[in-house]
Amino acid sequence: MQLAEPLQAAIEELSKLPGIGKKTAQRLALFLLKGENENVANLLKALHELKTKLRLCARCFNISEEELCPICQSAKRDDSVICVVEEASDVIAIEKSNEYYGIYHVIGGVLSPLSGIGPDTLKIKELLKRFESENIKEIILALNPDTEGETTALYLAKLIKPLGIKVTRIARGLPIGGDLEFADEATIGRAVSGRIEL
Amino acid sequence: MQLAEPLQAAIEELSKLPGIGKKTAQRLALFLLKGENENVANLLKALHELKTKLRLCARCFNISEEELCPICQSAKRDDSVICVVEEASDVIAIEKSNEYYGIYHVIGGVLSPLSGIGPDTLKIKELLKRFESENIKEIILALNPDTEGETTALYLAKLIKPLGIKVTRIARGLPIGGDLEFADEATIGRAVSGRIEL
Repeated sequence: MQLAEPLQAAIEELSKLPGIGKKTAQRLALFLLKGENENVANLLKALHELKTKLRLCARCFNISEEELCPICQSAKRDDSVICVVEEASDVIAIEKSNEYYGIYHVIGGVLSPLSGIGPDTLKIKELLKRFESENIKEIILALNPDTEGETTALYLAKLIKPLGIKVTRIARGLPIGGDLEFADEATIGRAVSGRIEL
Repeated sequence: MQLAEPLQAAIEELSKLPGIGKKTAQRLALFLLKGENENVANLLKALHELKTKLRLCARCFNISEEELCPICQSAKRDDSVICVVEEASDVIAIEKSNEYYGIYHVIGGVLSPLSGIGPDTLKIKELLKRFESENIKEIILALNPDTEGETTALYLAKLIKPLGIKVTRIARGLPIGGDLEFADEATIGRAVSGRIEL
């Protein structure tokens, strides 16, 4: 069956979103079509402002409304410690834990030669430049615990350590609420080798 | 953590969509924020046109770009048979089966006294009016096989039968590819009572 062209176009655009297949896209399109004009206008306005009102922080590349993000602007943060993360969503995740009071640097991805992502694609140059103007004592690498994240962490450690800056990595181990019986071998291995004295 | 206001607003609007929770909404918002401006502009344009270029068919209330939908306009359809469905998405589903060549009437929901949906909220008056101007021989009720759908079907049958029009209902039974062993009792019961001779 040939759907009406505007409906077909909306379904195609919606199904480009991550985790949204054709069937969900059709459901969303019909929901919006049936919904109040005002609700849809609110959604469109919010998405438009998302793209126009936000930019990347000039210092740490976190999401920001102004030139510097709220974390970089805050006087309460310890600006001698930088936590290096892949994406802005990781900043949100770490902030939610309420355990970290330093500042951040979002490198925008991980090294992945197969996808053509080398050191120059990431904000690594910008990180090294911060060491010149800022008084940094420690770098915490909080990259994802997968092959590419580990590779990127090792690459960064090799670059930064010679500068006399302490480089640490967030711990790997059993997640809170996790079950030893069902954890995979790699996680258990890391949990044992990374044990700490009580 | 306080998210930037435009990001927070986008997450809130996106999480109003069906099946999209806070976590998925955040993922979608960050995906759009990171994506090419052009791609986001295309999505916004498609959603805007979805609301401005489409309307309901003046005859059957299906989705349409013109006053009458393509099905109502088609000379190839048997316009003596009307299939009554709840929503426009049901028209799409039935058209995909390639088994039906009549026309449609979308009533826009089912009777549900608890949600305040009575006969006047649905396009039932409009259906009865079609019998005056059109030469209808059969009404096929294709409402969902749940309590409200069944109630609405009985209500419609009671209204239409006295007019001398044949009223049928789509069959209930085992779905194709389904397994007798795992079917629920109500479905098996309907499949048995609705058996046909081979």
